[in-house]
Amino acid sequence: MPESLSHRHLLEAADLDRDDATLVLDTAAQIESALAGREVKKLPTLRGRTVVNLFFEDSTRTRISFELAAKRLSADVINFSAKGSSVSKGESLKDTALTLEAMGADGIVVRHSASGAPHRLATWVAGSVVNAGDGTHEHPTQALLDAFTIRKRLGRLDGVRVVITGDVLHSRVARSNVRLLHTLGAEVTLVAPPTLLPVGVDSWPVTVSYDLDAVLPGADVLMMLRVQAERMNASFFPSAREYSRRYGLDADRMARLGDDAIVMHPGPMNRGMEIAADVADSPRSTIVEQVGNGVSVRMAVLYLLLGGNA
Amino acid sequence: MPESLSHRHLLEAADLDRDDATLVLDTAAQIESALAGREVKKLPTLRGRTVVNLFFEDSTRTRISFELAAKRLSADVINFSAKGSSVSKGESLKDTALTLEAMGADGIVVRHSASGAPHRLATWVAGSVVNAGDGTHEHPTQALLDAFTIRKRLGRLDGVRVVITGDVLHSRVARSNVRLLHTLGAEVTLVAPPTLLPVGVDSWPVTVSYDLDAVLPGADVLMMLRVQAERMNASFFPSAREYSRRYGLDADRMARLGDDAIVMHPGPMNRGMEIAADVADSPRSTIVEQVGNGVSVRMAVLYLLLGGNA
Amino acid sequence: MPESLSHRHLLEAADLDRDDATLVLDTAAQIESALAGREVKKLPTLRGRTVVNLFFEDSTRTRISFELAAKRLSADVINFSAKGSSVSKGESLKDTALTLEAMGADGIVVRHSASGAPHRLATWVAGSVVNAGDGTHEHPTQALLDAFTIRKRLGRLDGVRVVITGDVLHSRVARSNVRLLHTLGAEVTLVAPPTLLPVGVDSWPVTVSYDLDAVLPGADVLMMLRVQAERMNASFFPSAREYSRRYGLDADRMARLGDDAIVMHPGPMNRGMEIAADVADSPRSTIVEQVGNGVSVRMAVLYLLLGGNA
Repeated sequence: MPESLSHRHLLEAADLDRDDATLVLDTAAQIESALAGREVKKLPTLRGRTVVNLFFEDSTRTRISFELAAKRLSADVINFSAKGSSVSKGESLKDTALTLEAMGADGIVVRHSASGAPHRLATWVAGSVVNAGDGTHEHPTQALLDAFTIRKRLGRLDGVRVVITGDVLHSRVARSNVRLLHTLGAEVTLVAPPTLLPVGVDSWPVTVSYDLDAVLPGADVLMMLRVQAERMNASFFPSAREYSRRYGLDADRMARLGDDAIVMHPGPMNRGMEIAADVADSPRSTIVEQVGNGVSVRMAVLYLLLGGNA
Repeated sequence: MPESLSHRHLLEAADLDRDDATLVLDTAAQIESALAGREVKKLPTLRGRTVVNLFFEDSTRTRISFELAAKRLSADVINFSAKGSSVSKGESLKDTALTLEAMGADGIVVRHSASGAPHRLATWVAGSVVNAGDGTHEHPTQALLDAFTIRKRLGRLDGVRVVITGDVLHSRVARSNVRLLHTLGAEVTLVAPPTLLPVGVDSWPVTVSYDLDAVLPGADVLMMLRVQAERMNASFFPSAREYSRRYGLDADRMARLGDDAIVMHPGPMNRGMEIAADVADSPRSTIVEQVGNGVSVRMAVLYLLLGGNA
Repeated sequence: MPESLSHRHLLEAADLDRDDATLVLDTAAQIESALAGREVKKLPTLRGRTVVNLFFEDSTRTRISFELAAKRLSADVINFSAKGSSVSKGESLKDTALTLEAMGADGIVVRHSASGAPHRLATWVAGSVVNAGDGTHEHPTQALLDAFTIRKRLGRLDGVRVVITGDVLHSRVARSNVRLLHTLGAEVTLVAPPTLLPVGVDSWPVTVSYDLDAVLPGADVLMMLRVQAERMNASFFPSAREYSRRYGLDADRMARLGDDAIVMHPGPMNRGMEIAADVADSPRSTIVEQVGNGVSVRMAVLYLLLGGNA
């Protein structure tokens, strides 16, 4: 197994081949056990390195997760919210990139509403770029933390049957998970209303179903996608009641899952919409674990990308 | 005297019995003398611990005071402003709590516009919750820093006569001070227009007066409450001129105080409204000292709650 | 040469005599070489010191530059954006200053829309105040980083011929550069439309020209000022097309410069307005270097002002 990743950046799940992805997951596990034995829950690995959280969209959860990951590796962290910045005065993404580069940013964690923005950013800087979510495109560290959570709970990824349910069309979480889970040998089934599936889904390495109840008994993992409230009145979207009835997860539906199957959600949840409150809080649910695993996996990513020979 | 507090959280002044409150004040004094002798003004106590400032209401002063307190104890600090966060996308307080818990927050400092929010938060997390002001309910670290300031200036708290003047009805500062000062043996008199006193004030351990001038000669401490500009046009509020004339503190009125009496204000002040500029800047005023003491007292609270066996 | 600056604050370029300014530039160079040889790109000089970034105007670039400078000197940094703070509730600048002072701020970096605000602040605090831009008045660390950049590129400042072009009237960058470059022995020519020159420019130590093309062949340095979009429709402002034609820098105009001349811009740029994209990206351009030099120069300033005997 290699000791570093094939790419300098993490822009999408496809940047990781099976060895890379496994290295991230193994590193995250090693970091967790290293910290478990310590009084001071920090590693000195990235002392003197600078990580910039460059967020063009609000996402407090993801920002805090990366901020904690970087600080627990002893990096200095700069939070750059694009609102009210020179970006809003019309500065180009390129000039923002060159500015951060010149200031000595070793890593740039970027969230952007435009699909592909992290890829463009990566062409301008010598440091490493980590995509923290770009438009409806990808969110690779979310897929890594989901894979890490599945492996922890079920002991393996190869051959695991994962059902992903909801608004696949607009979901970067779904896109990254489909790619990464396939790389790691899992079998993915997508369940969504036809209007919420992308046109090119035929070429994805997945099975498609429109009937959630039919696929539940065979699932090891049921991953619910977040419903974006702002899309619910769009013409392609079923009514809230219809959506919840056909694609939401309540206790009755959860009972159709196999005994060891787990329920995942990337958060934040709309309790009562795509997932019922008692399901979210049940022992099958890994939702809170996913959050904690997110910090470990992001530590692993920053460690592998920025750690160099330190 | 115990070496740790009775409760895991600091949600309201009533969480502290006399031993607890004295322990916080003594610890703050010890921290001040320890740092006074050091070139580097930091203690390593909370290295590797994470303190989250979870502010649902803006309060730059209080946030900075806690941030400095935590950083001077070498903790990592995450600032979480609820604006523009998933909270504003409808995430419940519970899910926010579980998220911070999962990310490894050892302490959560919470400011919220709803009375009781910190108490609910505390039921969901394993870490310690510190109330940094909830609605019109409580602001216990403000009361601690006020008590610390009185003790420093006057040498004692037992039997000290404290007059609290202003909009008691809406003041969490007043509520926390009444409770804590009573615990510590001080005698509290409230002075306010009848419409700005709470209904249940009869059961509080205080004396009530409507005549500020009458009570001044017997006061050791005169604590002025902040007038909230947004309430001044409400029907229960006297006109600004009337308020200032009857309940404001100017130099003439200050002259009625005893020789050693001090003037306090939690800040930020409305100079010229509840307090005249020359009073605020006089040697009797402890207003600036209170701010400095606030950092020491918050260091003590975080130290005692999060320090564990470190 | 002295080992410390003459003044406790850095409020304007005139606070620095030639020895002071040279000391800052030399210290910045020493810091750069010290860090170049280190695995961990930090110095311990300001451990335990607190630097507050007090920004009444948004300026993400400048704030990040100071934040990085302070963190690379191991200081604790507090970001204080005046929006939504007690300042917006009507707290006076004086009370804000006294609050930060009481909390133990060793250095206050202040950006304010009112010319002179940092000077007033400096009268109220025991710590050091650094002006990070006040109204149309001064931005002394920008001038220092510009001087540092010129000295690095051209090897000297004495006798260097600098042309500053654009909206001098509203430019704090121009004011600070004119003063500092004069102190350091450079010769400054201002080029601007008559309506964009200040009334008192006759008393400045500069030459004035209205013809950019005429002065280019004799320039060692061409410094382009940023056009503020919000001023472009004002009556004193030429049309955008006219401005760009007469005072903008494109490749044709750049070709009139001498072989070793450099092109500077304080950023953020309006590419296509005051400077063409190919000019900004040409090897003559120092724009990205200026950003990196900004961190070094600000480290030097904080080191010299706050470093004390540490």
